[in-house]
Amino acid sequence: MSSARQRSKAELARRLREIVAPEHVIEDAETQRPYECDGLPIYREMPLLVVLPETVEQVQDIMRLCHRKSVPVIARGAGTGLSAGALPSPAAVVLSLAKLNRILKIDPLARTARVQPGVRNLAISEAAAEHGLFYGPDPSSQIACSIGGNVAENSGGVHCLKYGLTVHNVLRAELVDVSGERFIVGSEGLDAAGFDLMALVTGSEGMLGMVTEITVKLLPTPEVAQVVMAAFDSVKLAGDAVGAVIAAGIIPAGLEMMDGHAIRAAEDFAHAGYPTDASALLLCEVDGAAEEVAEHCALVERLFRELGAVSTRTSRSEAERALLWKGRKSAFPAVGRISPDYYCMDGTIPRGKLAHVLGEIDRMAAEYRLRVANVFHAGDGNLHPLILFDANVPGDFEKAEEFGGRILELCVAVGGCITGEHGVGVEKLRQMPAQFTSSELEQFHAVKRAFDPAGTLNPGKGIPSLRQCQEYRTLELARVSSG
Amino acid sequence: MSSARQRSKAELARRLREIVAPEHVIEDAETQRPYECDGLPIYREMPLLVVLPETVEQVQDIMRLCHRKSVPVIARGAGTGLSAGALPSPAAVVLSLAKLNRILKIDPLARTARVQPGVRNLAISEAAAEHGLFYGPDPSSQIACSIGGNVAENSGGVHCLKYGLTVHNVLRAELVDVSGERFIVGSEGLDAAGFDLMALVTGSEGMLGMVTEITVKLLPTPEVAQVVMAAFDSVKLAGDAVGAVIAAGIIPAGLEMMDGHAIRAAEDFAHAGYPTDASALLLCEVDGAAEEVAEHCALVERLFRELGAVSTRTSRSEAERALLWKGRKSAFPAVGRISPDYYCMDGTIPRGKLAHVLGEIDRMAAEYRLRVANVFHAGDGNLHPLILFDANVPGDFEKAEEFGGRILELCVAVGGCITGEHGVGVEKLRQMPAQFTSSELEQFHAVKRAFDPAGTLNPGKGIPSLRQCQEYRTLELARVSSG
Repeated sequence: MSSARQRSKAELARRLREIVAPEHVIEDAETQRPYECDGLPIYREMPLLVVLPETVEQVQDIMRLCHRKSVPVIARGAGTGLSAGALPSPAAVVLSLAKLNRILKIDPLARTARVQPGVRNLAISEAAAEHGLFYGPDPSSQIACSIGGNVAENSGGVHCLKYGLTVHNVLRAELVDVSGERFIVGSEGLDAAGFDLMALVTGSEGMLGMVTEITVKLLPTPEVAQVVMAAFDSVKLAGDAVGAVIAAGIIPAGLEMMDGHAIRAAEDFAHAGYPTDASALLLCEVDGAAEEVAEHCALVERLFRELGAVSTRTSRSEAERALLWKGRKSAFPAVGRISPDYYCMDGTIPRGKLAHVLGEIDRMAAEYRLRVANVFHAGDGNLHPLILFDANVPGDFEKAEEFGGRILELCVAVGGCITGEHGVGVEKLRQMPAQFTSSELEQFHAVKRAFDPAGTLNPGKGIPSLRQCQEYRTLELARVSSG
Repeated sequence: MSSARQRSKAELARRLREIVAPEHVIEDAETQRPYECDGLPIYREMPLLVVLPETVEQVQDIMRLCHRKSVPVIARGAGTGLSAGALPSPAAVVLSLAKLNRILKIDPLARTARVQPGVRNLAISEAAAEHGLFYGPDPSSQIACSIGGNVAENSGGVHCLKYGLTVHNVLRAELVDVSGERFIVGSEGLDAAGFDLMALVTGSEGMLGMVTEITVKLLPTPEVAQVVMAAFDSVKLAGDAVGAVIAAGIIPAGLEMMDGHAIRAAEDFAHAGYPTDASALLLCEVDGAAEEVAEHCALVERLFRELGAVSTRTSRSEAERALLWKGRKSAFPAVGRISPDYYCMDGTIPRGKLAHVLGEIDRMAAEYRLRVANVFHAGDGNLHPLILFDANVPGDFEKAEEFGGRILELCVAVGGCITGEHGVGVEKLRQMPAQFTSSELEQFHAVKRAFDPAGTLNPGKGIPSLRQCQEYRTLELARVSSG
């Protein structure tokens, strides 16, 4: 760092310490280290400074200061994001919203909770439990991830088949814009007048403003929930069974699939009683009133058997239900034990294309000589292939990254989408031109400029510049013609 | 019209006839007459021209032509909107999407329907019925209103308490922008990468582009539905009963309230068997699996009795259910019989404020010497006061309009919102400054400019200019200080 730049960094730190408590401005590399990446650690960068405001007024003052000095600002929640949306930059301040972590109000009559962005996802459901309510979206990281981060990435979870993504469960937010102005998007009512900026902000990855307060919907806790597990000899059969459940008019609370690699890794780790010789496992959760759940579970089990399940099992207690989910929920760390590194992809396909896409992924895995474990929200068509690699083997990560990119492009080719619930961040910038035309991307840029004309909010994330798109397309052509 | 303007109108008509069949350009006043208003006929204007394209390519060509000539374009669906969102202007072309009326695909596995904007709301459910599916939002005008209009106004309906507004039921749209460029917003998958332009376009009242194709979600048709009707001696008691149903963790498919005036008008018209001496009537529909519905109906009926219902009745057949709804659904025409004119308001309040707001409306009705019948979606807090007036009495309409405006401002004052499901259009422009700060309104304008820099898409609707806001605020101050 040049001495001029170091002086201006010191000056900025000094000014930030006039806004927040001195220890809430992090300047030295050692203490900054935990902020160098989010939950996708293959991307790492050191920030210029990290600042941790404790009040909305402090957020406003920080934004005003950075705006005047044209310093980029990167919002950060709990750092559990999976697309490097919160990746720092050496020229930017990282603004952590972790200390805005109060639950402001639970309103059981309106069935809403008003919370600060640093509140953990699970903490909302815990606080609402005494009223028989819960918050719907449940990302795997729900113990740790913050609701502000969920809004930024439009997070989903195992239960979003029935309860929707974050965008379907948020009503109103307070936003501090790039110049420090505070305003409201959405409303706590049924509708909001004007353009739906609440939905626009959801999934916008900190590129439109800082969310400083959120009102979420709460749902009545279902009377009971049960899981039907079924093992199949092929992913094709399991895919057909998923279609049959949907066609029968059932809306499961969750409908998850794992392939053979994932089943064996998860069973080894969690001892959930999964059949380790199966090629595909389905977990179908039904929740609601007791009679309906019993009836739907029986129907699901019958459909699974008719469609070729070699074994089925329905949970008979909460403990058994928890055990069946434990394997699925620990699939990621479980895979972490069988490979030095893994890369979790996130894409969405039409449900009918499941078997085709899994076949193609297998074919590509052979081509790249990399193993893949497939774990995914089958009910939504949301794939999470885990590509196994070893970062210590030169070239292995680059192969994994290219393979992952091709999986996303395959999702687009079959009519799907390069995201399901992890956002675009830095990770998927390169696939954006496969999904969108230049005029669609230009429309995104126009919307971005409507909030952030100078482009200082989380620059370089979410939407590739048109120049980057050109480069990606050229590289892609080169790859295809040489491949 | 000056002869120069007449020549340019004739020239535009000639150019439009090169794009569409000659009879699909309407130039003469007589044939234009049906287009001079939408479902809020207190606002009327004649258009410059009306054009009815039959294909997306024609829509693109019309947009390109009007863009080159800087002629404003106003989108129109079935003309059933209730906030004058499709009100013509003498300087603008009305682009009717009525002839783009094909259902393109029903996909029972994906549970989606891909349709053109001119398809009627009810026609989607009719086409999906053979697969045991239906489309959720059901505005009262569902026989006539088009899905494109529903997207433009983010329409709701009796069942949106459980099934959501239009924005919660649309996945993807094709948009033709102001310059004739065609692009896609949203995706048929679970999520879409980039900003959520699908939600942004929903409710945007034709100000961001022309929607030329829509993919909607379909839902499994519930096994059964039953209605519990309950009569109360006061709206306060009925309001408390609504709260109790919600607090009990039930999500009714619909939960409607009518006050005494509305009950008597509806009964007189529909002979639904409503108790005409009641001060408030609740209709609570529960749908789902048979056992659950029976259980919930019994619980709802018990809660209603515990909270002071003087009588209750539960539908025992589909015919009886239809009859109980018939009164509610015909409340508007019924009120039309007891008053020469009525003005239907649309605002949303927190459920807990129901009794307070109805009391205030009564008080204001006495002040203005106007009668009000209250019909509303009580479960969502979505009010529809019908202000009765006589357009032939000088000053009566102006009183009704001012009264209506004060009801909307009351909604804002109690923490609610000036819309529920009818949009802002022209009608509610004046209340926008009560709902939003100047910087919030400026943010809407910035978003609008990101799509339509020259402001030629449905100008003058949805968002007041900052100059208008100034005027409204000055007038409001004058009214308050003189009143």
